[in-house]
Amino acid sequence: MPGPDPLASLDAQLDRLRALYRELHRAPELSMAEHATADRIAAELEPLGYAIHRIGGTGVVGVLANGPGPVVLARADTDALPVTEATGLDYASATPGVMHACGHDLHIVALLGAAGQLAAHRDAWSGTHIALFQPGEETAAGAQAMLDDGLVARIPKPDVALAQHVMPFEAGVVATAAGPVLSAGDSLRITVHGRGAHGSMPHNAVDPVVLAASIVLRLQTIVSRETQPGQFAVVTVGASNAGAKSNVIPDRAELLLNVRTYDTALRERILAAIERIVRGECAAAGSPREPEFEPYDRFPLTDNDPAVTARVTDAFRRRFGADRVVQAVPATASEDFSRVPDAFGTPYTYWFVGSTPADVYRAAVERGTVAADVPANHQPGFAPAIDPTLETMVRAHAIAALAWLAPEEAA
Amino acid sequence: MPGPDPLASLDAQLDRLRALYRELHRAPELSMAEHATADRIAAELEPLGYAIHRIGGTGVVGVLANGPGPVVLARADTDALPVTEATGLDYASATPGVMHACGHDLHIVALLGAAGQLAAHRDAWSGTHIALFQPGEETAAGAQAMLDDGLVARIPKPDVALAQHVMPFEAGVVATAAGPVLSAGDSLRITVHGRGAHGSMPHNAVDPVVLAASIVLRLQTIVSRETQPGQFAVVTVGASNAGAKSNVIPDRAELLLNVRTYDTALRERILAAIERIVRGECAAAGSPREPEFEPYDRFPLTDNDPAVTARVTDAFRRRFGADRVVQAVPATASEDFSRVPDAFGTPYTYWFVGSTPADVYRAAVERGTVAADVPANHQPGFAPAIDPTLETMVRAHAIAALAWLAPEEAA
Amino acid sequence: MPGPDPLASLDAQLDRLRALYRELHRAPELSMAEHATADRIAAELEPLGYAIHRIGGTGVVGVLANGPGPVVLARADTDALPVTEATGLDYASATPGVMHACGHDLHIVALLGAAGQLAAHRDAWSGTHIALFQPGEETAAGAQAMLDDGLVARIPKPDVALAQHVMPFEAGVVATAAGPVLSAGDSLRITVHGRGAHGSMPHNAVDPVVLAASIVLRLQTIVSRETQPGQFAVVTVGASNAGAKSNVIPDRAELLLNVRTYDTALRERILAAIERIVRGECAAAGSPREPEFEPYDRFPLTDNDPAVTARVTDAFRRRFGADRVVQAVPATASEDFSRVPDAFGTPYTYWFVGSTPADVYRAAVERGTVAADVPANHQPGFAPAIDPTLETMVRAHAIAALAWLAPEEAA
Amino acid sequence: MPGPDPLASLDAQLDRLRALYRELHRAPELSMAEHATADRIAAELEPLGYAIHRIGGTGVVGVLANGPGPVVLARADTDALPVTEATGLDYASATPGVMHACGHDLHIVALLGAAGQLAAHRDAWSGTHIALFQPGEETAAGAQAMLDDGLVARIPKPDVALAQHVMPFEAGVVATAAGPVLSAGDSLRITVHGRGAHGSMPHNAVDPVVLAASIVLRLQTIVSRETQPGQFAVVTVGASNAGAKSNVIPDRAELLLNVRTYDTALRERILAAIERIVRGECAAAGSPREPEFEPYDRFPLTDNDPAVTARVTDAFRRRFGADRVVQAVPATASEDFSRVPDAFGTPYTYWFVGSTPADVYRAAVERGTVAADVPANHQPGFAPAIDPTLETMVRAHAIAALAWLAPEEAA
Repeated sequence: MPGPDPLASLDAQLDRLRALYRELHRAPELSMAEHATADRIAAELEPLGYAIHRIGGTGVVGVLANGPGPVVLARADTDALPVTEATGLDYASATPGVMHACGHDLHIVALLGAAGQLAAHRDAWSGTHIALFQPGEETAAGAQAMLDDGLVARIPKPDVALAQHVMPFEAGVVATAAGPVLSAGDSLRITVHGRGAHGSMPHNAVDPVVLAASIVLRLQTIVSRETQPGQFAVVTVGASNAGAKSNVIPDRAELLLNVRTYDTALRERILAAIERIVRGECAAAGSPREPEFEPYDRFPLTDNDPAVTARVTDAFRRRFGADRVVQAVPATASEDFSRVPDAFGTPYTYWFVGSTPADVYRAAVERGTVAADVPANHQPGFAPAIDPTLETMVRAHAIAALAWLAPEEAA
Repeated sequence: MPGPDPLASLDAQLDRLRALYRELHRAPELSMAEHATADRIAAELEPLGYAIHRIGGTGVVGVLANGPGPVVLARADTDALPVTEATGLDYASATPGVMHACGHDLHIVALLGAAGQLAAHRDAWSGTHIALFQPGEETAAGAQAMLDDGLVARIPKPDVALAQHVMPFEAGVVATAAGPVLSAGDSLRITVHGRGAHGSMPHNAVDPVVLAASIVLRLQTIVSRETQPGQFAVVTVGASNAGAKSNVIPDRAELLLNVRTYDTALRERILAAIERIVRGECAAAGSPREPEFEPYDRFPLTDNDPAVTARVTDAFRRRFGADRVVQAVPATASEDFSRVPDAFGTPYTYWFVGSTPADVYRAAVERGTVAADVPANHQPGFAPAIDPTLETMVRAHAIAALAWLAPEEAA
Repeated sequence: MPGPDPLASLDAQLDRLRALYRELHRAPELSMAEHATADRIAAELEPLGYAIHRIGGTGVVGVLANGPGPVVLARADTDALPVTEATGLDYASATPGVMHACGHDLHIVALLGAAGQLAAHRDAWSGTHIALFQPGEETAAGAQAMLDDGLVARIPKPDVALAQHVMPFEAGVVATAAGPVLSAGDSLRITVHGRGAHGSMPHNAVDPVVLAASIVLRLQTIVSRETQPGQFAVVTVGASNAGAKSNVIPDRAELLLNVRTYDTALRERILAAIERIVRGECAAAGSPREPEFEPYDRFPLTDNDPAVTARVTDAFRRRFGADRVVQAVPATASEDFSRVPDAFGTPYTYWFVGSTPADVYRAAVERGTVAADVPANHQPGFAPAIDPTLETMVRAHAIAALAWLAPEEAA
Repeated sequence: MPGPDPLASLDAQLDRLRALYRELHRAPELSMAEHATADRIAAELEPLGYAIHRIGGTGVVGVLANGPGPVVLARADTDALPVTEATGLDYASATPGVMHACGHDLHIVALLGAAGQLAAHRDAWSGTHIALFQPGEETAAGAQAMLDDGLVARIPKPDVALAQHVMPFEAGVVATAAGPVLSAGDSLRITVHGRGAHGSMPHNAVDPVVLAASIVLRLQTIVSRETQPGQFAVVTVGASNAGAKSNVIPDRAELLLNVRTYDTALRERILAAIERIVRGECAAAGSPREPEFEPYDRFPLTDNDPAVTARVTDAFRRRFGADRVVQAVPATASEDFSRVPDAFGTPYTYWFVGSTPADVYRAAVERGTVAADVPANHQPGFAPAIDPTLETMVRAHAIAALAWLAPEEAA
């Protein structure tokens, strides 16, 4: 016999949550500067009975210990982007040049909403719920900042970790998948050294423009020849810059690389291949100094645990109905969520929730114009439909947590 | 029987000329902004009896008609460079960040000095002497500006044109050569177009970073394969710039090229080859827009007329002594002097005068350290030895002009 | 109630089939020259009651019409390879330099064995069984030759088509998969033209060595930049040849390309990109003649119909046991089998059967030395274990055909 | 007062020499297999009084000691080429596929003719004349073979060495120049190693086709960037070969390079740069084995001594008339002549003699069609005009030798 439904009282809360969402959307803050946002989160969470920890600068963690049982960590990210909002919404950003263009405001409210339901229905479950609000996802800085600030020692070790992200597909639908769902992302600044000279005296130079060109072409072979056909790998040279005048051979070139992979071993092989190729090309050029490799903006792989994912998917199917739960297609984007469960050695799953009105989305699919007609994350026009997106995301965080804290089979 | 020596009275003028040189050196002005310099030149030239023309903004031309005979045009350039002087001289530049680092101040004074001698000894020669002070040589703008302002229609057509340049070799020595002595220099801004995309979605992009790299490597073949071995040609890509972020594929790349040649037909073949290669590579890339080619800073070839050069060289040998006249090695630098005689269809010669104290230069040659020990033009430490450089340059301009205006054989 | 088992009498036939396999293995024939093999097949098939058609030179088709019902086409390929056998088997090839190194001899005997069982048990099924023995698979010539010889008009239109291939995994196991299981394979001979010259006079040449090098590097970008990350695509330049002497610039270069894809639209995009790149590079080089593109050895995609595959897989599970039926991993190799069903518009499936003794295979997997220790198809040491491979393949062809001719649900 | 003219009796010999030339032209022999040719030379030379030495297999040296005085070495090369003659001459090659296509038959007869005159007029000069007939010039093997066979110890040390070559310019004219007149030529066979694999499995390979392409493009930078503009240097990759099938990635690639220089230091820098680039590219590729560098066909620089050249040029002017002596343009071809004087430490000069009828040559120059209309050395149609070429070359060898053996100033 199932116990009382901890989500029974959600309807009464939705208006409050919608208002909170509009408030947060209006007041976006950039990565690692989410000061007001963090205060607002703590102000919501503390009254619910969660023990509040401020970790990693603008990170907020609430812990609700409710008897024996599993420890579930649910995470929301909190930062906004340097984008100028162009949605025309009446609750659009009031801060010029900054916008919640990736829906993290929805993430915050959804987790606060789920926490509210769990706090209100402690009789319906047993265990510990951790609501972790992470800053600085967009710059891959926030999860690491919380870990550097002692997160692992300061909260209970979770048995499972959960996160979700809003995306431009049919609102009301959730998408799950086992295995890699977001790629590992590595950025690399490579400086190669030549020897400058007047443009009319190339024999006195080691030309870094030619060296950089050779490197760019050679790097193509990592995907074309060194990666198993059909295996996901991206090596993009997003920027290659050298020199400022036509008649002066510069003394260095800078390359900015971005690497995306779904496989840890492949990632390591690719990073090694990049270094091998750059060093080889510098040797071929007679470069007078070793090249410099500076990794930055490193995003870990998001690799959903199959058992955890199956459990969450089953729970979603039971509670949302099977027609609202679809198989997620792995995205080429990246996240730093997994750093936290990885630091604990905890299995996790990360799912997606649609935010585009069903009729809009279906019509665009039919026309084959999704990319053109549906504003996606990071775009100035990104505007999730509050309904039913917000409610779906609140429920998703509650349902997933309860799959451990009040499992069906225990009913 | 030779007539009176028009240079007999020069010694008495040297102190005045040295002072004028220090004054000009202290007050350098950038290209096409040589306002005070032009006024100063006109103020010197007018009392000598030269008819003054202000042409091309800051250009000054003085014409001294002295009876029937050849028309000789002598040219000095007048602009300074955006260089911060580091000579430590007591007459160093008083204008921060601007310096007469290429010796044009010496050129001015030398031509004024020669004009003074010619004016003072009109009985010793017959014909017309034109002293042309050209602005904006460093940016290849000044000669063209004078031509655009009607130079050809406003002064008599010269029978011969003469110019000289100070260089860091043994002071007191002049160097002449027939044929190409300064290269043609062409700068080219090339913009190639790709299609931007997120760094993880290269299949949606046309990657201009890879396109630019292919172009850079392919351009190497113009010198290595398309130019006759041993023929002088330089194709330098001084700058190649595309993109600013690792994870965004940009939509264009910009290349700045510099081409140097001594041969007009080869120059045209090279410019055509550059365009052929860039267009071919853009086609190979599937570039969505035609590339753009924007020539700038174009310097013409300086190609000394053999007969004119021989006459000047003979005159120098007779007057300076054969041991002070050497064969010039063509330089890879460029000049816009030749535009003026070319506009008139007038043959010309352009020679070099050393400015490094003989003992310093010879010691550096012996040690093989000229490049390291002797500051060259455009360097912050470039400091011509006033003596004997100034006197040599005054005499050179007078001797060369008199080779037509009072030729030995007429004596 | 199931009818009589058409495979009941197989055991009694196995010795005869083993002997036939050894006989065929001893007498391999190269592609499109399988004359004795074709005669031998016809001699086996005719006594069983199959109507014999000799189609496409060395192709043999037997048709057994057995009452109303579906038409099932089963295909075996028959050619051997120019490989010198090094198995040491007592039934090794007696023809030097030719070997059944790809197991087509097993394919022949398996289809003949299944035909024998179907012929012997006509009471157990109803419909038409077509046993198609196709020559010239290795050169992609045989299926086309049969079609060119009127195959479609000369045999009944099949409702389903079936084929199988022996592979170096655990013997006794069958592997099936829906969708693409073998890649499309396209070979391309590209000739690019330069202008020859003495090696010391590159300016008189258009150097095809440099042109070919540029093409090879540029072709890498088709996979690295133009293909969606994770989508299967291979562009291999297997051969690049130009010139014979160090001091003579040749006048052409030849490239041999091989393209592999699982997706028809991608295949066409890649072939178009190859042509675009080659033409663009030839233009960049100033090539005096258009390049030539000569396709050869074109293999179609093998794209298993999901419904057909599901039906065969179910039948295999029921008859072999679920533990002997695994999910096939798509192979990068290619086949021309699909040409025949595609010509009829008939759905098909193509499965794999293991041929390595179970203990050998498992030990190699455990050591991670499969590639080194298990000789694969096309290698001189490729030696399928006759037992249980042969029996498994006979049964597989019979079971799959009976899934239509005597479906369980009809029982 | 000049002594008797040693060339006075030449006219009487010309018919004999013409016949000998036709005989030799009819019977060409390949490099290092000039057996009949060597015997014929010795048979001509011995009766003249020259002491005969057979050195280096098919090399022949005749020494005529004629009193005190300088030792002059004159050299002719003797080998033919693997070319099928297409001149249509009645004295065309009788040996299919072999032709005196480089005029060495003329060189032989010219030196024999000069020897004949010197021998006939010993009263007119004093000193020692060495007539050296060198085999294997085309393969750069003959001079070395003679040195390896003890040449230096077996003949007197020459004070000066002389050689000439027939070329397709105006017959009757000789061309001399001090300094480098023929380039140093170095051939290099480079083998780079990859790892082979099936064409569909590039990730198991190290692709040598891509590696070779990278090397070819990078080698272009040696001339375009590492060599002083205007300095003569050629780096030609005459052959780049890898692979034989489209679908098999080969395991190695072979490059054949040819390097031409006029400057010894530059030659060494270029050879070092080639090795640096190849090793760097192999490192970038992850090549499993070090590349192999195998030099072959090495030709030394031919660098005419200025004093020797001036003396020969003066003598030619006096005897041929100044209008028949022109300034030679350095050729990009190579020779092994200089090895012999270099082994002795002897200064030398090497001049060219025209062989195209004057009217034909001048008309082609006027039309600008010399390359098309005048068959050059090594071409199947190369056919020197016997007159006045033969006489000019005989006289040239005699005049040059007498510049030391009977100098004008001694007269």
